[in-house]
Amino acid sequence: MAEAVDGAEITGPHRVVVVGAGFGGLKTVRALQDVRVGGKPLAITLIDRQNHHLFQPLLYQVATAALSPADIAEPVRALFTGQDNVTVLMDDIAAVDPAPRTVSGRGGTYPYDTLVLATGAAYSYFGNDTWAAHAPALKTLADARLIRRRILLAFERAEMTADANARAKLMTFAIIGGGPTGVEMAGAIAELARSTLARDFRHIDPAQTRILLLEAAPNVLSGFPAPLQDYTVKALEGLGVMVRLDAMVSDIDRGGITLKDGDRIPAATVIWAAGVRANLPGGLDARTSRSGQIEVAPNLSLPDHPDIFCIGDACHYEQDGTSLPGVAPVAEQQGAHAARVIRARLAGTSPPGPFRYRNAGMLATIGRNKAIADLGKIRFKGWLAWMFWGLVHILFLIGFRNRLMVFWNWTWAWLTYGRGARLILGGSRRDAPDP
Amino acid sequence: MAEAVDGAEITGPHRVVVVGAGFGGLKTVRALQDVRVGGKPLAITLIDRQNHHLFQPLLYQVATAALSPADIAEPVRALFTGQDNVTVLMDDIAAVDPAPRTVSGRGGTYPYDTLVLATGAAYSYFGNDTWAAHAPALKTLADARLIRRRILLAFERAEMTADANARAKLMTFAIIGGGPTGVEMAGAIAELARSTLARDFRHIDPAQTRILLLEAAPNVLSGFPAPLQDYTVKALEGLGVMVRLDAMVSDIDRGGITLKDGDRIPAATVIWAAGVRANLPGGLDARTSRSGQIEVAPNLSLPDHPDIFCIGDACHYEQDGTSLPGVAPVAEQQGAHAARVIRARLAGTSPPGPFRYRNAGMLATIGRNKAIADLGKIRFKGWLAWMFWGLVHILFLIGFRNRLMVFWNWTWAWLTYGRGARLILGGSRRDAPDP
Repeated sequence: MAEAVDGAEITGPHRVVVVGAGFGGLKTVRALQDVRVGGKPLAITLIDRQNHHLFQPLLYQVATAALSPADIAEPVRALFTGQDNVTVLMDDIAAVDPAPRTVSGRGGTYPYDTLVLATGAAYSYFGNDTWAAHAPALKTLADARLIRRRILLAFERAEMTADANARAKLMTFAIIGGGPTGVEMAGAIAELARSTLARDFRHIDPAQTRILLLEAAPNVLSGFPAPLQDYTVKALEGLGVMVRLDAMVSDIDRGGITLKDGDRIPAATVIWAAGVRANLPGGLDARTSRSGQIEVAPNLSLPDHPDIFCIGDACHYEQDGTSLPGVAPVAEQQGAHAARVIRARLAGTSPPGPFRYRNAGMLATIGRNKAIADLGKIRFKGWLAWMFWGLVHILFLIGFRNRLMVFWNWTWAWLTYGRGARLILGGSRRDAPDP
Repeated sequence: MAEAVDGAEITGPHRVVVVGAGFGGLKTVRALQDVRVGGKPLAITLIDRQNHHLFQPLLYQVATAALSPADIAEPVRALFTGQDNVTVLMDDIAAVDPAPRTVSGRGGTYPYDTLVLATGAAYSYFGNDTWAAHAPALKTLADARLIRRRILLAFERAEMTADANARAKLMTFAIIGGGPTGVEMAGAIAELARSTLARDFRHIDPAQTRILLLEAAPNVLSGFPAPLQDYTVKALEGLGVMVRLDAMVSDIDRGGITLKDGDRIPAATVIWAAGVRANLPGGLDARTSRSGQIEVAPNLSLPDHPDIFCIGDACHYEQDGTSLPGVAPVAEQQGAHAARVIRARLAGTSPPGPFRYRNAGMLATIGRNKAIADLGKIRFKGWLAWMFWGLVHILFLIGFRNRLMVFWNWTWAWLTYGRGARLILGGSRRDAPDP
């Protein structure tokens, strides 16, 4: 029987709960898993609503039939096999209660001593929630499968219809939002139509597919230097994508898109890649930005709750007058920083200085042999940037097996112009494009 | 303007419609695609309700998270790229009308001169259709994903529950039907629990999983010689599977299974691998067997409709007093035979003799290093049979890319005991196991 020593309360190990197994959450757990306090390891609980970590930068390749879901996802449990002080749970955390220090979801209520919210972001339709049914966004594997299904079904239905208007509508794909995801999707759909599917139909010519990329701002890929933005538009146009800048969407319905200038675009497949909104549990009463992100202190904790940290896409952090973008390197560096703050507190050592993002560069890909890279002083584009983009993404992908699968799929696609995952699976009739 | 020559009616090419892109349907099309009549190629239309050909023998590996759906499926269109006289359509054929010679589905009505029905079979619950919701069967990729989801979720929920009864129920998996699919599923779930998941949970021990294989007959794998059946039962028991023979199911509900002898088995996950029933469009008025298969003439055509053929799992064909089993080689040989009959008719040459199945042997796999092979005179089991099973399945898989992916996935799994596709995706709450 254990007994109190010197009248001191016997306490269990320090409990860290991390919500979200994205780039930020995983980095936090990895940085804390071997920390010991008083000889004991921390009791870490990692909770995610999915059973897998998702490599989101390649999600558009699942949506365009180039990769399988399993190629870019790893079961969270498998990442911590045998790490006995890390418990992985699949639950959807709905609320934080800072007074008793618990988080709760459908499966239960979990106490914490330190909480790290790494809950990410979802797409936002700027209050037009009816648009979601007509213009799915790309954030989860389920989204990617739905979009893959819609894209492939649109061609199948176009092949079956005798009505020229219905066929034209089915063969029109509109992507809303000219950020990296919108650019990647537009380029990938163009290649799918013009190369992979080119000789597979008898009644339609997939090369006649219309692909539109609509961006409300005067340029695509905001944040990149103007010459690379211009190159991107030209490269997309070379692939057959119509890029419309300054194009504000005023409505989306079953028939297509209406623009603010009154223009009407009939399109059976519309993909939303515009605004995002932080995913956050209720109960926090914290200050948030316009897109729902929590405003954090320089050490990434909540100003009123020093034992709660918020990192990644769910957090709003300004540096040099601009807010940091929602990209994997920001989330990972914030996860590592939050872990350093927690470790210093538990060890009683002096805390690290305020968080500062070190930007190693930005990459975006457009299509076969076409990408852009902005590494600060060095900027390049085209074939070299495309190879560099591929290398970086393979290296950062989690899991040796996944790296080989993706590498092999890419090599195969590059050699044959084929795509490995052209499957139309499941889904309700509602998921299908309207002719 | 084309004109009638010598008063003869100008006719288009002979129209062959093949319904079903399984092993039998594909073989028929391949055997007919280069046939020319009067210098013209046939106009072949291949219709399937899915956009992909499925390699069903490996479907259980998708259901148990070893392979991805795309590894065992090929888009039907991609198999006939550039073969201009073959039109592939995605439609669900609901009816045949032999008088005007058309088949019709949701997408349209298609005229034929010769029709080949290769529509396969689905699982049948012997009239107990309410069982389907509690005990999904494994026939399509959607089924496999649903079962994968249920199996993986059962472990996730068991990890979360504090109730010992609920946990025991969640960790009980019952497979009904001791044919090849039932044996493969039981072995694969046992390996998943005992090897892959062994160290991934903190509150449950996956090695304690109960796996039951229930078979109504006095032995598993009917059709195999008794010594190989006995080996199979011993090998399954060695993997921790409880095999219950002479076990007749009288009811399946949310809570589990009731047997005819009154025994009650609480189980959150029940998988149906028992009876099958032919998938056939309406309108035929043909003689069918007890499981709904069409009884065909020795040349595989319908006795009352010589221009309609039926092959594969949808057809009933007796040879030497027993009906042929629903396996890929039977369907392929029947497809080739139907094509020979059609070709002889069009060429006006003498027809081939009655169809006769040449059985090259039977294989069944149980688990790692465990399989059985019955090649008529040669029978073997264990490691050698397992390697042989793997080799044969890789060779018969369609598509070079798929072969390499499956080979690589298997090598990886063999080396690491890992599984590449442990994803819980989509699905409604109804798809989840009940605690």
